[in-house]
Amino acid sequence: MSNIIEITRQIKIDSTQMSLLGGDLRNQALAAIATALEENKEKIFDANKIDLDKAAKADLASPIVKRLKFDEHKLADVIAGINSLITLKDPLWNKLMERELDTGLTLSKVTCPIGVIGVIFESRPDALVQIATLCLKSGNCAILKGGSEAAHTNKALFEVIYSAGTNSGVPKGFLTLIENRAEIDELLKCHEAIDLLIPRGSNEFVQYIMSNSKIPVMGHADGVCHIYVDEAADIKKAIPIIVDAKTQYVAACNTVETLLVHKEKAGELLPLLKAAFDEKLVTIRGCQKTREIISCEAAADVDFDTEYLDYIISIKLVDGIDEAISHINRYGSHHTDSIITEDAAAAEKFMLLVDSAGVYQNCSTRFADGFRYGFGAEVGISTGKLHARGPVGLDGLVTYKFKLYGNGQVVADYADGRSSFHFKDL
Amino acid sequence: MSNIIEITRQIKIDSTQMSLLGGDLRNQALAAIATALEENKEKIFDANKIDLDKAAKADLASPIVKRLKFDEHKLADVIAGINSLITLKDPLWNKLMERELDTGLTLSKVTCPIGVIGVIFESRPDALVQIATLCLKSGNCAILKGGSEAAHTNKALFEVIYSAGTNSGVPKGFLTLIENRAEIDELLKCHEAIDLLIPRGSNEFVQYIMSNSKIPVMGHADGVCHIYVDEAADIKKAIPIIVDAKTQYVAACNTVETLLVHKEKAGELLPLLKAAFDEKLVTIRGCQKTREIISCEAAADVDFDTEYLDYIISIKLVDGIDEAISHINRYGSHHTDSIITEDAAAAEKFMLLVDSAGVYQNCSTRFADGFRYGFGAEVGISTGKLHARGPVGLDGLVTYKFKLYGNGQVVADYADGRSSFHFKDL
Repeated sequence: MSNIIEITRQIKIDSTQMSLLGGDLRNQALAAIATALEENKEKIFDANKIDLDKAAKADLASPIVKRLKFDEHKLADVIAGINSLITLKDPLWNKLMERELDTGLTLSKVTCPIGVIGVIFESRPDALVQIATLCLKSGNCAILKGGSEAAHTNKALFEVIYSAGTNSGVPKGFLTLIENRAEIDELLKCHEAIDLLIPRGSNEFVQYIMSNSKIPVMGHADGVCHIYVDEAADIKKAIPIIVDAKTQYVAACNTVETLLVHKEKAGELLPLLKAAFDEKLVTIRGCQKTREIISCEAAADVDFDTEYLDYIISIKLVDGIDEAISHINRYGSHHTDSIITEDAAAAEKFMLLVDSAGVYQNCSTRFADGFRYGFGAEVGISTGKLHARGPVGLDGLVTYKFKLYGNGQVVADYADGRSSFHFKDL
Repeated sequence: MSNIIEITRQIKIDSTQMSLLGGDLRNQALAAIATALEENKEKIFDANKIDLDKAAKADLASPIVKRLKFDEHKLADVIAGINSLITLKDPLWNKLMERELDTGLTLSKVTCPIGVIGVIFESRPDALVQIATLCLKSGNCAILKGGSEAAHTNKALFEVIYSAGTNSGVPKGFLTLIENRAEIDELLKCHEAIDLLIPRGSNEFVQYIMSNSKIPVMGHADGVCHIYVDEAADIKKAIPIIVDAKTQYVAACNTVETLLVHKEKAGELLPLLKAAFDEKLVTIRGCQKTREIISCEAAADVDFDTEYLDYIISIKLVDGIDEAISHINRYGSHHTDSIITEDAAAAEKFMLLVDSAGVYQNCSTRFADGFRYGFGAEVGISTGKLHARGPVGLDGLVTYKFKLYGNGQVVADYADGRSSFHFKDL
């Protein structure tokens, strides 16, 4: 498989050529991809049928089968996504700064592509279209590995996108599909050619990628999100928000796993919440004080560290906002945490001190998503604090370079006092 | 030394409290630090004398001794640096985006501190002052380890800065000095408490840090910078630029190591350049074609991979700009590369396709420096492509968080079509 090293080396070379494509050409290629997906939809649906049949035979869990399905509805969604991507401002070559250091010596800081990005994603084939088109819009080459359950659908989608893209004048290296799980380990060694890895999937998988490659990794392993019900909470808002955050889609990383409740609010909130959760078949694991108010399972310390991804929630009573903030910063995964309060000062304190990518007031943690933020789509959600944080859209797929235009300037003149900088922002 | 894990855990807690300090308080603390440095200068100079005496006894190389010296001149420099830092705009809590997702559901993206930053730096004691004050201005806690040659000076500077800072109301965790080399290995394990490491030093040292910690690392291992003399170069500009880039300070990462010369320009340039380099005692290692024009040592392939940090330069003749760009992207370290040309289109092509943090026209690579870019100072120079690139000043020491203000919104209403997003930028 040293083949992969050769392939990525060529992609790296193609990636510099991506900088020569203007925004218009990238948008034309995106439009051609949207058209080609529509024109080739029967081929794609046929491929999807093979994957669905295999899933049925393998008796895969119904949520996986649902995510695997690529039908007219999903096609319409991804085409709408591409069309909205076309209307978004070109993320490349924007001047972030322009400064005259001295007469005739001008520095500018301009956005540019990151280069070659490897994305390893789960069984949703629509993710392939979203990631490929986000990378193209931002001038990056993408190397993709999708879930093996969706192998036929992914291959069909890849062939349509690759052919429409290259026919529009985009370099061949813009999109590569890895079909073999074993090739992921080869990819991890290509730190000279790949600039960024975005692994999406289970905690163990993401940890494995992070521990086995020198390539920078963006993403998240865990999503232990919290809702804190403050002393000044409006209970009528709190109940539907908590129920939505727990049950609207239990398998997502932005689902709430732990509820923190101000001790003065617990007597009013917990019985109502238990009734609502009983209806949705949610299991509650509560601290000792919680169990003095409602009947539920006992929470162990490990519960507060756990991403259930299931119809289970842990509940802890706290003395006040400071304990809530400390708990979140200690046990959370720096993903998304929400406070329910009518007290603006409490909300500001929470938002200032909670060390997470998303800090919310009076709404569901489930809003943490690139589409819902208006980014069109996302390549992933980052809980790291460097580069991009939270849902990662086009902005997170670009970096910048410094351009310095001179006319013969040398540093010795400035070091020896014959010239001096005047730093004038333009 | 599990002591370090305990210490960093407490610093992590203090780091969230840094977010409560307003920009005025941070500036007042900086002013107090500048005053305290002036008031305690004799104590600092005395400590520096101990380090200098030890260096003299140990027969350290004269450039190291020069960097070690902390006198009235260096003191004036660092105080001027702090005063200029005070005048710079507060990097925290700036709104990068504000968007109404739907009526009463408003998203904002605001800058915030990274948290806890570990910086391991070389023997210059003035670096301690610069790094500590940049971190304070940007609301971060800094854990510093300086070169052991400067141990007494660093300790004296630390005590003055720590005491002035905490007396101004900054949490104790804002600044920590590590004095023991062995403690670095303990630091590398503190990935739960430390958000970012910035190692400055030799290639081997930086590689060691990168390979032995899960903490994200920002910096650079190598600085193999290039100058390309284009067919349309003005030779009168080229010679002084090349001489400055090679000899103004040979031990710096932004010093040029390889010169690429257009074959049509070599006959005119090389003899003049050789004369200039002979005067500065620079050894030339040339490719075969170079040696047909001037007499010099033969360059091996490994020379083009080498950061000499010495009075040595490699020279290669190229057929044109495309070969120059390919060579730089293949052998360079993505630090800083300059083209000498009067042809604006050639300069643009070079700047677009060279995959480096700094791309220059008609000036010395030695300009790649936070002070010369007008950042006040720098905590390091990054050759990575994520987060910050090139010289890293205040902008590179902040991240952002997403704040979402709602009024009871749940995702189910949007998923089921009862509500819809309208994405209006404010």
